[in-house]
Amino acid sequence: MTDSPVFLSESESAALVDDDLALAAAREAFLATADGSTFPVVIGHSSLPHTRFTLKSGSAGDLVGVKIGSFWPDNTALPRHSSTIVLLDPATGRLRAVVEAAAANAYRTAAADALAVATLARPDARTLTVIGTGHQALHEVRAVSRVRPIDRVLVVGRRADAARAFAAQVTAVTGLPADPADARTGVTAADVLVTATTAREPLFDAAWVRPGTHISAMGADGPGKQELPTEIHGSAKLFCDLPDQSRAIGEFQHAPGAVPVALGAVLTGASEGRTSPEDTTVFDSSGFALQDLTLAAALLHRAALAGDTE
Amino acid sequence: MTDSPVFLSESESAALVDDDLALAAAREAFLATADGSTFPVVIGHSSLPHTRFTLKSGSAGDLVGVKIGSFWPDNTALPRHSSTIVLLDPATGRLRAVVEAAAANAYRTAAADALAVATLARPDARTLTVIGTGHQALHEVRAVSRVRPIDRVLVVGRRADAARAFAAQVTAVTGLPADPADARTGVTAADVLVTATTAREPLFDAAWVRPGTHISAMGADGPGKQELPTEIHGSAKLFCDLPDQSRAIGEFQHAPGAVPVALGAVLTGASEGRTSPEDTTVFDSSGFALQDLTLAAALLHRAALAGDTE
Repeated sequence: MTDSPVFLSESESAALVDDDLALAAAREAFLATADGSTFPVVIGHSSLPHTRFTLKSGSAGDLVGVKIGSFWPDNTALPRHSSTIVLLDPATGRLRAVVEAAAANAYRTAAADALAVATLARPDARTLTVIGTGHQALHEVRAVSRVRPIDRVLVVGRRADAARAFAAQVTAVTGLPADPADARTGVTAADVLVTATTAREPLFDAAWVRPGTHISAMGADGPGKQELPTEIHGSAKLFCDLPDQSRAIGEFQHAPGAVPVALGAVLTGASEGRTSPEDTTVFDSSGFALQDLTLAAALLHRAALAGDTE
Repeated sequence: MTDSPVFLSESESAALVDDDLALAAAREAFLATADGSTFPVVIGHSSLPHTRFTLKSGSAGDLVGVKIGSFWPDNTALPRHSSTIVLLDPATGRLRAVVEAAAANAYRTAAADALAVATLARPDARTLTVIGTGHQALHEVRAVSRVRPIDRVLVVGRRADAARAFAAQVTAVTGLPADPADARTGVTAADVLVTATTAREPLFDAAWVRPGTHISAMGADGPGKQELPTEIHGSAKLFCDLPDQSRAIGEFQHAPGAVPVALGAVLTGASEGRTSPEDTTVFDSSGFALQDLTLAAALLHRAALAGDTE
């Protein structure tokens, strides 16, 4: 690394990212949650108040920086979400690198949920049900199906045509059989259930969940958002990325008494994860800066190996 | 401007910046405070807790973005302060530009204080006293001496040798006669008084200030910082950049009852400034994101004119 800042463009980072890189970066980020720092999240907007940008900053080891996420709902030619990760030089505080990471951000978010599945789901989990049929949902299916012997995917969507089209996409991308299902059928059959929606109320009935199921919920990342029935909090073992943040803006804002365990603590062995095949486990992901910093560092490392920078 | 983000390096922005550019950018920023938005300031650190970075974000007109300021106290070869300004594309939310601006940031901060002098000081102000002998203090003297017919500079410092050396530097840079002075002499003689220190207690006695003096205080930008005697709040007309921020982390944190007027409101004519040659006016600067966004835009504009980018 020279003294000049390194810049990775969107097309460069999109070409470098893959599920392996994202999963390794996620593992590093969750392991760092115990010692690292994350700072308050800022939610801002442009002169058009319906746009949104978020600033998530943190530090761990030799990483320090900020992820600027943006959501421009009027975008048509470009994705509505984008992401820029800025790393500072830990030795001097000067700019070290800027990584455009709109495409990579979807891998990063899916990797966190896949890491939770790898850590908490039953080893023999075979049926994956996904609620949601958007761009992120496809990333979630692909990432999760790599960490368990998934042999069937069920797709729950609000619109039957979208669910059918998404199931066909899943098969095209993963080779797995995939079928649309109603919510009750999908939830009841699931060994692993992933929710990837922008819902503001529960997507299913807690009574439909079989003991032993693992649930990764990625949608709730702001006030008022909710994907899971609150009854599940009493019957399941609860995990998340950052407990304080999850209670403030994640799924557990709807469970004031919940004491979710940090996934990082399970990874280090400081806390227990699943202890029985009958446990229902819930992981709530609201997203934290260290995921972005480790992702950027991994992309920069791969770029340097490829000779694309320096 | 193409679709690819523009990057201005530290050496490029340092070569492009000057007092005129900074003053025009400051004026634009203060005029935008009424309609623009600023979002909560984040204060973070690297794994070394004595480092500090701040995130100041905002939007106004077609500008939206964040300034990452850093303070790495152990730096020796490099300045301890640095600054990176990130602009998003207002149409898409994608990265538009990254401007390294460590050197430019000192111009930007001095320009705000000079703008206050240009707006609030007596037109015939001739004696400028500066308290503080650091890098920023020299920028303040240079910027302020351009907006009033200053013909004498007095320098107040904690160490006599530093004050002497600084006075010599002032003369070398501005051509103005400059002399060290004790605090009482300097404050009493001042038509314009600039404080540019990291003080945590008042630097002078309010009784020393002659009626008609203008004071620009730039040092207080965090809890516990203070440069002015609290008695001045009762006898002077009070102005600042952002009233809420100034009461939270600026000079007026020590004046809970103070109702400072936004300088932007004086510039637009919405509020009165000085109304008599006998008024004592105080301007407190704690710094806000729109200053950084307009500075970055001005640097990018000048770079484009110079053919350095695109």
